[in-house]
Amino acid sequence: MTRVAIVGVAGRMGRTLVSAVNQDETATLAGGIVEPGSSLAGADIGELAGTGKSGVAAVDSLEAIKDDFDVLIDFTAPKVTLANLAFCAEHGKAIVIGTTGMSDDELEALDGYRDRVPMVFAPNMSVGVNLTLKLLETAARALGDEGYDIEVIEAHHRHKVDAPSGTAIKMGEVVADALGRTLKEHGVFERVGQCGPRSDTEIGFATVRAGDIVGEHTVMFATEGERIEITHKASSRMTFAKGAVRAARWVSSQKAGRFDMQDVLGLARG
Amino acid sequence: MTRVAIVGVAGRMGRTLVSAVNQDETATLAGGIVEPGSSLAGADIGELAGTGKSGVAAVDSLEAIKDDFDVLIDFTAPKVTLANLAFCAEHGKAIVIGTTGMSDDELEALDGYRDRVPMVFAPNMSVGVNLTLKLLETAARALGDEGYDIEVIEAHHRHKVDAPSGTAIKMGEVVADALGRTLKEHGVFERVGQCGPRSDTEIGFATVRAGDIVGEHTVMFATEGERIEITHKASSRMTFAKGAVRAARWVSSQKAGRFDMQDVLGLARG
Amino acid sequence: MTRVAIVGVAGRMGRTLVSAVNQDETATLAGGIVEPGSSLAGADIGELAGTGKSGVAAVDSLEAIKDDFDVLIDFTAPKVTLANLAFCAEHGKAIVIGTTGMSDDELEALDGYRDRVPMVFAPNMSVGVNLTLKLLETAARALGDEGYDIEVIEAHHRHKVDAPSGTAIKMGEVVADALGRTLKEHGVFERVGQCGPRSDTEIGFATVRAGDIVGEHTVMFATEGERIEITHKASSRMTFAKGAVRAARWVSSQKAGRFDMQDVLGLARG
Amino acid sequence: MTRVAIVGVAGRMGRTLVSAVNQDETATLAGGIVEPGSSLAGADIGELAGTGKSGVAAVDSLEAIKDDFDVLIDFTAPKVTLANLAFCAEHGKAIVIGTTGMSDDELEALDGYRDRVPMVFAPNMSVGVNLTLKLLETAARALGDEGYDIEVIEAHHRHKVDAPSGTAIKMGEVVADALGRTLKEHGVFERVGQCGPRSDTEIGFATVRAGDIVGEHTVMFATEGERIEITHKASSRMTFAKGAVRAARWVSSQKAGRFDMQDVLGLARG
Repeated sequence: MTRVAIVGVAGRMGRTLVSAVNQDETATLAGGIVEPGSSLAGADIGELAGTGKSGVAAVDSLEAIKDDFDVLIDFTAPKVTLANLAFCAEHGKAIVIGTTGMSDDELEALDGYRDRVPMVFAPNMSVGVNLTLKLLETAARALGDEGYDIEVIEAHHRHKVDAPSGTAIKMGEVVADALGRTLKEHGVFERVGQCGPRSDTEIGFATVRAGDIVGEHTVMFATEGERIEITHKASSRMTFAKGAVRAARWVSSQKAGRFDMQDVLGLARG
Repeated sequence: MTRVAIVGVAGRMGRTLVSAVNQDETATLAGGIVEPGSSLAGADIGELAGTGKSGVAAVDSLEAIKDDFDVLIDFTAPKVTLANLAFCAEHGKAIVIGTTGMSDDELEALDGYRDRVPMVFAPNMSVGVNLTLKLLETAARALGDEGYDIEVIEAHHRHKVDAPSGTAIKMGEVVADALGRTLKEHGVFERVGQCGPRSDTEIGFATVRAGDIVGEHTVMFATEGERIEITHKASSRMTFAKGAVRAARWVSSQKAGRFDMQDVLGLARG
Repeated sequence: MTRVAIVGVAGRMGRTLVSAVNQDETATLAGGIVEPGSSLAGADIGELAGTGKSGVAAVDSLEAIKDDFDVLIDFTAPKVTLANLAFCAEHGKAIVIGTTGMSDDELEALDGYRDRVPMVFAPNMSVGVNLTLKLLETAARALGDEGYDIEVIEAHHRHKVDAPSGTAIKMGEVVADALGRTLKEHGVFERVGQCGPRSDTEIGFATVRAGDIVGEHTVMFATEGERIEITHKASSRMTFAKGAVRAARWVSSQKAGRFDMQDVLGLARG
Repeated sequence: MTRVAIVGVAGRMGRTLVSAVNQDETATLAGGIVEPGSSLAGADIGELAGTGKSGVAAVDSLEAIKDDFDVLIDFTAPKVTLANLAFCAEHGKAIVIGTTGMSDDELEALDGYRDRVPMVFAPNMSVGVNLTLKLLETAARALGDEGYDIEVIEAHHRHKVDAPSGTAIKMGEVVADALGRTLKEHGVFERVGQCGPRSDTEIGFATVRAGDIVGEHTVMFATEGERIEITHKASSRMTFAKGAVRAARWVSSQKAGRFDMQDVLGLARG
């Protein structure tokens, strides 16, 4: 059993991580951290997560549970994560990091721990997204020279500030790589007005922003007479939480090093 | 029985119109025109359409069948259509016109026949598209003030030269009208890079161009917790052909006038 | 401002209701109930819901907040709901009930309060589902005699025990009613093996059970050349919670009576 | 250049095959056969197909064009196909056979030519369907033990007499094989009434029959938090025609033998 502690159990992602550990038969909930001074310190972290009493009370420092866990999961903020990395290095813990928005300096600081901490650092821990990338590569190679038009369609919630999504761009890059193209040259990110017919080699992107859509991505390969569509739909943070728990199990038996989800899933690409 | 003649039975749309008349129990195939000099003059128009022998041979002038038909269906080119309108005015025939790409001068010439010919002129004769416009109006009115984000997604074949499609824009206009908005102010036709979060009132458009997609349109109304999607998918020219035959039946009992598909379908809007 | 109290704020639906009230500018959070003896009594109900401190502490009896609220929202269990109804009758409160699984006796007991309590009782409070029913009626009437095949496709999570869903059956009934058909005679709930071609008037149902799908329903109207699809996708309990808050606002100004969501939304059907 | 002759150019599939050969830069139209006595003998087969004058006139016997072609494509009826196979054996031609509905005796007769004729015989020549099978195998292997529910949803036109489609069953078998399951044990073909929750290992099938849907298949892998959907949509006979032309090019350089589309596409499975 991998003993897992979770940072930020009062937040939505933290609660989802608690649920994901609860559902995993080979991982056990070993601790949960809340911000110093939170009214939720002392509360049962299972009850907090809405999954029933767990017998583990939330604490407000890692120090308090330092003998209880093997791997820390951290989806918080860059400064918090770097402080937790220092703690893991000092106490021989592994860590799974889903924190985003790091500056270049923060990324460099993070990378400085690669020889001292077994860590998985990945912006998207979804098992499905990572498998989808593999399927896209296979499809692009099989259809590349046969006149199939390729389009990437993505939809996200109303609050998302950039377009296309990072995952959509990653999908486009995987397809472009497989075909010896580049998005810089072949990516088409807008079509408005009299834009003329589609070229054979362009990779088009279409973006939808509405409601609470967690994240949906479709890559379409279409030719006269047929279409193949490979779609990933995230329905909740649980997809990222489950990927994180899978990463935690995996990294608990690794030596120091910086890994990503392709390593965790054993999906060799190339 | 409405006796229908079809212009351009050697072309793809013409053949589809032949099939549509064949399937309609209250319309009968009364003639088919091919271009002067075509090797297909004299061929059976049912065999041409791939629907079996019809007993009607293709001719290369309207004059040859002037006593045989009540309504002409014409999905050809502006000049041909205007010549055929003159013929209908002279011989007391009705006409259904699906020809697109008319210049302002040609539209004016067409309109000049409104007092002499019963005519249905519509850029999209699909029954489904016209019903969809009605559903969109109902949905927009019911959801307008309740925080639903509205997006229009359309996909067409690789040869289409403009974006968004005329039908997508029409759908957006119907929704905007129902909400007291305008596409000029609220339409968002591209989202690339750091475009910021979605505003409450924008109506977004996304465009896909690939393969042989005849035409697919979805209007999404999304809020936290749910989405309603109203989708129209044209799978073949048959959708336009069936609308045209329905228009032919309807217009055969009308007096002179210029009508559209809302008139034919009896879908009052407002 | 409508002052709303919520029963069961420690549960998932209760937390979602807290979020929904928080998002509504014309309703205010006036109280939250947890089970007697819960470790969460005294906790801030906004923090419990993960939406930040609200200043309202969870209590374990309605008595403790009886002067604070106007409308109670209750998505719990039949016995709890009936006890709360008695409380509302005694203290002049309105109630919104989303509790399911009532026996005939319990339904009769509930109905006994219709002259004493303003209540909204509805198995599905989603605004979108109720609008969808209206759209289906319009579409069925417009397409009924024009050769469109009608199919209902629904998908739900792996735990759902019955098929098709109650909402799918309701959709089928609305369509059947509009066409003068009945599901008893025209509903087709399975197609396996050599089942022969589709009849013109059947209404087919297809069921998918997988993962965590909250609830997706599509009704398809298809003929040669085109399809219209009207789709509802619930993405979270929030859709039901928002409908419940809308019902709470509405019922707070009603006299005693038993109402449903059609009343709340003003969607006359007929 | 592969010189291709097509049987049945007056039929819909024949015309589509003519278009597909026209679009292929490494194949050339070398002949087209119509039924003895057809009014279309002598007509230009390009004009028949609606793709413009080709310079090749339809004939009513293979004998008339026996020196002109290398490969015959035949999507007709069992008896016609067997007669054509005999002709190919006698004159050293290759053949691509898409004919369906053969009896066991006819299949045995066909197989009798495997040592004398290079032949591709496949019930579904779509490149996309065959690639989809490969993607399904990859996905099933990656997700098999991770709690993903698998469902197959298919939609076809109103005339289809059996359910689920042969292609849907094939997709289910590929997935089942990859997971060490069988459809006999794990396939669930109907869910009606109180059918209980989904089991972990079942593979569900859902069937839609409506309008003119050429053929749509989706395999869904769903778990808490995400879904992967792999979809194939045939939009016209062109998908089968293009696969047939690809098969014709490939088989023209093979020795005698009986092959399928996996051989043509080089998609090793296993």
